[in-house]
Amino acid sequence: MSVLPQSVEKVINEFSKLPGVGPKTAARMTYHYLRSPNHDAKKLADALGDMDESITFCKYCFNVSDKKICDICSSPIRKRNKLCIVEEPLDVVAFENSAVYDGFYFVLGGVISPAEGIGAKDLRFKDLKKRVKQMMEDIDGKELEIIVATNPNLEGEATASYINDMFEKEVKEGTILISRLAMGLPTGADLEYADRLTLKRALEGRRSI
Amino acid sequence: MSVLPQSVEKVINEFSKLPGVGPKTAARMTYHYLRSPNHDAKKLADALGDMDESITFCKYCFNVSDKKICDICSSPIRKRNKLCIVEEPLDVVAFENSAVYDGFYFVLGGVISPAEGIGAKDLRFKDLKKRVKQMMEDIDGKELEIIVATNPNLEGEATASYINDMFEKEVKEGTILISRLAMGLPTGADLEYADRLTLKRALEGRRSI
Repeated sequence: MSVLPQSVEKVINEFSKLPGVGPKTAARMTYHYLRSPNHDAKKLADALGDMDESITFCKYCFNVSDKKICDICSSPIRKRNKLCIVEEPLDVVAFENSAVYDGFYFVLGGVISPAEGIGAKDLRFKDLKKRVKQMMEDIDGKELEIIVATNPNLEGEATASYINDMFEKEVKEGTILISRLAMGLPTGADLEYADRLTLKRALEGRRSI
Repeated sequence: MSVLPQSVEKVINEFSKLPGVGPKTAARMTYHYLRSPNHDAKKLADALGDMDESITFCKYCFNVSDKKICDICSSPIRKRNKLCIVEEPLDVVAFENSAVYDGFYFVLGGVISPAEGIGAKDLRFKDLKKRVKQMMEDIDGKELEIIVATNPNLEGEATASYINDMFEKEVKEGTILISRLAMGLPTGADLEYADRLTLKRALEGRRSI
């Protein structure tokens, strides 16, 4: 005799699959829905079902989208000579919310991480090559700027230099310019608590004022 | 133009309703489902839908159940003169998993907490009274033992003494015995780190060896 009804166990089991969610948290989440008087469980179920059915990946940038080509990639006002390479769709959201970038994106789908068994073949490098070629044809000989916006950690750095190697020839020819997001102290940071690498990068990247 | 497709925003919004889940965590959870290759979103959606349809509350103990009367309340081998009052269904799971109790349960649905605006009328005290009366009739004059197993904190204590007051008359008559779970040091605890109240309770409850 199991204490919990099977349908409840099933929901707990599904929630436990989420990264960082253990069985206790999953149970708590499930009980929230059992206690909720306004059928929140049904609402979440419907939302998830809709998402599962409607969501696809943009064939240009591989961001999540409900269209074959997303709103950004089909926008006529976006700069056609800039491509920002990010790890995840949420990174695109971060850029868009801060309204500091006006070019296109490319979502790699992660970073090279030998520790987690993620190699170059698990990421969208082939599609990236294709997209870059396409953009180069589109701007017809003008310089394409690739901004590598992977996270400032070991894996992000390794992935950035992999991308650098990929386009070595084009960079030498001057048809592609590859840049990396600046590293240094974040706004509001306290020098006292900055780690060594951040301080090193902040010094290296110092600018005259 | 929103960056995220509406169906994705909806799922994030639903996840954000979970206690302790902020918009960032909700987004991460949602993206887990977007990345999952084996339609985990659909599986969770189905599980939630099933749960929403099939789950009800046992009419005796108010634990979640897929039957009108749950397996515990309809069990012929449970002791009919013991009632353990708990806050939440998960507390029943904790008791059952440790297999230390053989009576019935009653799930209050929370504790009295003026800080959170939860008063006595928001909990199942009326149903508790009814259930206790029913059990007393069932055991026909024998003493009914009520074990109050609310959590050992301020709200739990307040709720325990509310229950105590509820059955003052029966306790005086000797038809009901109310007990509270023992408080003291948990197994494996380090005296050095025990808080004052725990130490006080451990001392008060000391036993000869």
